[in-house]
Amino acid sequence: MPLNRARLEIASAFSWRRLCTVLLGLALSIGGLAPAGAEASDPLPSWNDGATKQSVIDFVTRVTKEGGPDFVAPQDRVATIDNDGTLWVEQPIYTQFAFAIDRVKATANQHPEWATQEPFKSVIAGDMKAVAAMGEKGMVEIMAATHAGMTTADFDQTVEQWLATAKHPRFKVLYTDLVYQPMLELLDYLRANDFKVFIVSGGGVEFMRNFADKTYGIPPERVIGSSGVTQYQMWDASPVLVKQPKVLFVDDGPGKPEGINHFIGRQPIFAFGNSDGDKEMLEWTAFCQRLCFMGLVHHTDAAREYAYDRDSDVGKLDKALDEATAKGWTVVDMKNDWKTIFPAAKAGP
Amino acid sequence: MPLNRARLEIASAFSWRRLCTVLLGLALSIGGLAPAGAEASDPLPSWNDGATKQSVIDFVTRVTKEGGPDFVAPQDRVATIDNDGTLWVEQPIYTQFAFAIDRVKATANQHPEWATQEPFKSVIAGDMKAVAAMGEKGMVEIMAATHAGMTTADFDQTVEQWLATAKHPRFKVLYTDLVYQPMLELLDYLRANDFKVFIVSGGGVEFMRNFADKTYGIPPERVIGSSGVTQYQMWDASPVLVKQPKVLFVDDGPGKPEGINHFIGRQPIFAFGNSDGDKEMLEWTAFCQRLCFMGLVHHTDAAREYAYDRDSDVGKLDKALDEATAKGWTVVDMKNDWKTIFPAAKAGP
Repeated sequence: MPLNRARLEIASAFSWRRLCTVLLGLALSIGGLAPAGAEASDPLPSWNDGATKQSVIDFVTRVTKEGGPDFVAPQDRVATIDNDGTLWVEQPIYTQFAFAIDRVKATANQHPEWATQEPFKSVIAGDMKAVAAMGEKGMVEIMAATHAGMTTADFDQTVEQWLATAKHPRFKVLYTDLVYQPMLELLDYLRANDFKVFIVSGGGVEFMRNFADKTYGIPPERVIGSSGVTQYQMWDASPVLVKQPKVLFVDDGPGKPEGINHFIGRQPIFAFGNSDGDKEMLEWTAFCQRLCFMGLVHHTDAAREYAYDRDSDVGKLDKALDEATAKGWTVVDMKNDWKTIFPAAKAGP
Repeated sequence: MPLNRARLEIASAFSWRRLCTVLLGLALSIGGLAPAGAEASDPLPSWNDGATKQSVIDFVTRVTKEGGPDFVAPQDRVATIDNDGTLWVEQPIYTQFAFAIDRVKATANQHPEWATQEPFKSVIAGDMKAVAAMGEKGMVEIMAATHAGMTTADFDQTVEQWLATAKHPRFKVLYTDLVYQPMLELLDYLRANDFKVFIVSGGGVEFMRNFADKTYGIPPERVIGSSGVTQYQMWDASPVLVKQPKVLFVDDGPGKPEGINHFIGRQPIFAFGNSDGDKEMLEWTAFCQRLCFMGLVHHTDAAREYAYDRDSDVGKLDKALDEATAKGWTVVDMKNDWKTIFPAAKAGP
């Protein structure tokens, strides 16, 4: 206990950071230690030099400059970043939909009725054209059948197993290997500058929380997404949360600022997206009444990743691109602005 | 920029904490500095010594003891704490309901129809007995009329003005002065030991977020509560979120573990409540599969605060008290366990 109390005292009297500043001064003043890596280095090494990269660095530099006109206190440095197509690959179909398709196939033997029932019949037959033709209705039925009727713990385990084994059809690597190295660097750069970094995605919150901490260093409570209703139940005197086939919240389009209000309760000063589903989040961020940053990833690299925008079924970028151009938001030209796309030795085209 | 980059380098190479440990070792080894306040002191000075206080300290000591059998990594130290009756006074009516009543009166001139329409007619006449007799239906109508139809920004401003002026009927001080000093110390103690402290309350999330940071040091993104639907709209080319008269989520009873899953996505290891509305949160926490702490505030002090439990309309504590007794959860006997109730020089009975 004395040790613990001593720790508490140190923590509450100084905070690690303030104590550290004192100690650093002491160490430097006696010439006993020069902090390693204190020389300037590039925080975004996978970004090519140019206006895009510079816009990020300028923004972060300005809002973190104490005493400067654009300074923002650390507690207000909220960054909200989309997931599909912004942090990882979303083509040819959203990863979570690929998971759902695989789950239909894997559990088909428990559902003999699916043999004659759409959209499941087409999924099982591998006729993705027919599934696509059924549009949103079919997709919703597939999601409900694969994302409900189990406990949150069982769902989490199923996602974990799938992500550990399923391979992307083109790149032949795990989906979690198909994250964008430049964006990983951006997340690190923001956190090193005391930003609170949140994912704000149309994807399912429980699906993303399974890998966001391991993959991006973003803990569950900073992952915001679409969600279904869960129901608290007692099973053999043990409490469980059972996922219901009922939507609670759709975190896409106008749902993004609504979700930011619902989950975070603060105005972001930094937002990054890649599609029209991010338009309202960027507009909401632009309304921050101080210096704020709005960015879009424009997928322009068919060789190394994909090239798509206005006519894409997945990740359509049309109105948001026009608005970004009109308002001078940052638009990443993937082909020219990013030196590398994926983490080294993970994936090639 | 070089300064900024140097900072980034230090942060990412070491983290403040690790760098600090190195520097602390250096400083101590050269005998140049002994950390101030390193001697043991009482982290909970407003708690009387005894089994209740000891149960809190023992728990925190065990889960923070590195290498010990009950050690929990800092990122998993999630604490979820109720608000009304646990962090501040909830008698004679929930503070948020007092706010709603005052709003009905303050806006009655804009609603001539209320002169003949219940429950508003009785509210305006000050006949709270009649309002109470209308039960939940009346309360929901009052809440809808006062918590919807405005932007989130306007609502926030209204709450702020009300909290800055409205006085508690018995203690004649601001409601934010009626927080429990022993619980403020507990929040500090948990944070000093690297807990992530969340409010998980049946109260409205936007109402609580207005004061939680100032009053408890709990930032908006760590406040979980009941919420209504908001709708993103453009007003004169400015985006706004308009509060709709429609419930999105009720964070009470079984809604507490559901809300913890929805907002946090992690299992708490520490939970504190005071009523049957906290029962499921405590059960869910008790299911943490490692050392966990479940606590209840039992209001036993009519002289300094209030005494109520099984028969109370507000903050009824019946089944949860039985469960706490049966399972050995910590129950604060307010009269005997708390040396002081409110922060000094704020309120007396």
